[in-house]
Amino acid sequence: MAMSDPFRLILASGSQARKDMLTGARLTFDVIPAKIDEDAITSLMISESDCVEAADIAGVLSAEKALSVSRANPGALVIGSDQVLTVGRRLFSKAATLEDARETLDILRGRTHELVSSVSLATGEHVLWQSFDHAQLTMRSFSDEFLACYLDRAGSRILNSVGCYEIEGPGVQLFERIEGDYFTILGMPLLPLLTELRSRGVILT
Amino acid sequence: MAMSDPFRLILASGSQARKDMLTGARLTFDVIPAKIDEDAITSLMISESDCVEAADIAGVLSAEKALSVSRANPGALVIGSDQVLTVGRRLFSKAATLEDARETLDILRGRTHELVSSVSLATGEHVLWQSFDHAQLTMRSFSDEFLACYLDRAGSRILNSVGCYEIEGPGVQLFERIEGDYFTILGMPLLPLLTELRSRGVILT
Repeated sequence: MAMSDPFRLILASGSQARKDMLTGARLTFDVIPAKIDEDAITSLMISESDCVEAADIAGVLSAEKALSVSRANPGALVIGSDQVLTVGRRLFSKAATLEDARETLDILRGRTHELVSSVSLATGEHVLWQSFDHAQLTMRSFSDEFLACYLDRAGSRILNSVGCYEIEGPGVQLFERIEGDYFTILGMPLLPLLTELRSRGVILT
Repeated sequence: MAMSDPFRLILASGSQARKDMLTGARLTFDVIPAKIDEDAITSLMISESDCVEAADIAGVLSAEKALSVSRANPGALVIGSDQVLTVGRRLFSKAATLEDARETLDILRGRTHELVSSVSLATGEHVLWQSFDHAQLTMRSFSDEFLACYLDRAGSRILNSVGCYEIEGPGVQLFERIEGDYFTILGMPLLPLLTELRSRGVILT
């Protein structure tokens, strides 16, 4: 579905879900995961302001990811994306181990959390465009037995997601309510990105 | 994630998307596609009432599908599901050929359509439970060139869906707005079904 294009399109993310989204939409692109220190940037933002929002953090991180790859690949159009999970004012980072994942899921159980996903387009030194979307997800009050069984079967794949779930897989069983765009939940607001790529002549209108 | 269960769970649908949903959620089930004359049932319902709703049709068809398989498999718990697409009062059936698909997409282009998905549980002669959900999808005003390219590349897989698209694939490029639960859009309201299966002790709480 891509035009014979003058752009080299690059996805600056190693996320399988984001790659699958773009592949599903039949885009032609390369994958070059950005190497930025997300925790350092997030900590700096939080230390500099009392009222930093999840969307601010997701926006800065998606832009920084896109820029870190676009600077090294002049002429390319680079897609950066980030997702932040919050419960109230509390911000979550990815779990490093299955024991961390158990702690995260124990906190999320029976509560509504918010996912904010951001996508940025950059070329050279410039961010050309950015978009956000929010989703609200409510986990049910699953039993300890269910949680143990989930962690046992899901394995380390869930460490790729800040919420420790893949809703396209067994993670769906954690939820009682899912409100929001599916692509946003998977990690990137796809429809606004496609609209922007169309307006730039990268894909067919 | 299934308990050591006394039930044989059967999905009365040949739809790959529905099968993938249940497999993703780690359910153990057999697939026995229902053989019912959907067009005859729909025509009868429309001829008998001036105000039949899309949800009525989806509900009757999901129940009939579940019953046709539960009658033949005593003791099994059978999942039937149906999806109906409407634009205003107009009801669409699946396209039989790519030329029919072109006509459907030509009508849906630039418009909002509604998908109603229904899921039923039956055992023996009885429907035990039913649920519905609605989603609204707006196609963008894509070019004829895009449509030709889409039909050419998507191939006959799109004939499996009443809207002639798979939003998990290239079909996402047809849309400017998608509002509603992803599983409902794929063809079956999964979260209410999982809740019901939990309350019946079929899967772990």
